[in-house]
Amino acid sequence: MMKRYTISVLVMDHPGVLQRVAGLFGRRGFNIESITVGASETSGLSRMTIVTSGDERTVEQVEKQLNKLIDVVKVVDVSSHPMVAGELAYIKVKLEPDTCPEIFGIVDTFHAAVVDTGPNSLIIQFVGELADIEAMIERLQPYGILEVCRTGTTAMVRGDDVTLNHSKLPRSYHHAR
Amino acid sequence: MMKRYTISVLVMDHPGVLQRVAGLFGRRGFNIESITVGASETSGLSRMTIVTSGDERTVEQVEKQLNKLIDVVKVVDVSSHPMVAGELAYIKVKLEPDTCPEIFGIVDTFHAAVVDTGPNSLIIQFVGELADIEAMIERLQPYGILEVCRTGTTAMVRGDDVTLNHSKLPRSYHHAR
Repeated sequence: MMKRYTISVLVMDHPGVLQRVAGLFGRRGFNIESITVGASETSGLSRMTIVTSGDERTVEQVEKQLNKLIDVVKVVDVSSHPMVAGELAYIKVKLEPDTCPEIFGIVDTFHAAVVDTGPNSLIIQFVGELADIEAMIERLQPYGILEVCRTGTTAMVRGDDVTLNHSKLPRSYHHAR
Repeated sequence: MMKRYTISVLVMDHPGVLQRVAGLFGRRGFNIESITVGASETSGLSRMTIVTSGDERTVEQVEKQLNKLIDVVKVVDVSSHPMVAGELAYIKVKLEPDTCPEIFGIVDTFHAAVVDTGPNSLIIQFVGELADIEAMIERLQPYGILEVCRTGTTAMVRGDDVTLNHSKLPRSYHHAR
């Protein structure tokens, strides 16, 4: 059954690591719906969050292949746990005097925020899960969407558990902080 | 002079495009501080936002080389315009009864939100520019940061201007929507 998976990949901050991860997905024909790369809680390590869709066998293959890559420290299927997940989107919408109250109504309903206004447009900042962002964009479509900038999803396992198991880290990282 | 640049790259949704962009940065020794990849306002096109640091000459080279890549439709140095920029971060912090009020005080001060609580931890959701996120993390450090998940920065030019100039698009994309 096709499903959407959110994979968290801890990698060392070495040149070429993003290229290797992207290359793996390309070569194997795995689909990347979104990818984010940011600093992690440990200096020298970055965290990539990849949203991919496929069946269970495919995602198992993705995890296995990622684990084999140089500079990959840890791979976790966050979506197999209870998680918080979200992305940040900026949406630029055409503004006309008669549509203005309606647009602000939508912004309020979605608990979004207006962060810029031009003479004929405004920028809405919105944080939500993938489905929320898509609903928001669909709702704004009739007014004329000029531009959309989205970060892609990042996700974290709920509760006290942490993604990073230090046991797989090279010795030099144990006392990095 | 070393500076931080925010580059917006519109690319076609073809397999291998992320690998080519990542490969370019690796080969040329350009530094990627963060990269986000998400759907754009036009179906079939994705937008990458890359934060890189270097001198003016380096960033000019980055733009030039990116423009030469297959599937790259448009490259804009967003940071050379007035812009809105931000990223989403989830921060898991250790929670003890006596530190709880202090942590909630920091959350309020930064206009952040608590989105999950475990027996001994909580997850803070925070949207801000890179410097805000770093300030928030520094402020929380003494309480014990267990995990950080960050999307990396996305950015949009303020006002009515849009990043995408349709003139460079292949004919087939003009009537995609």
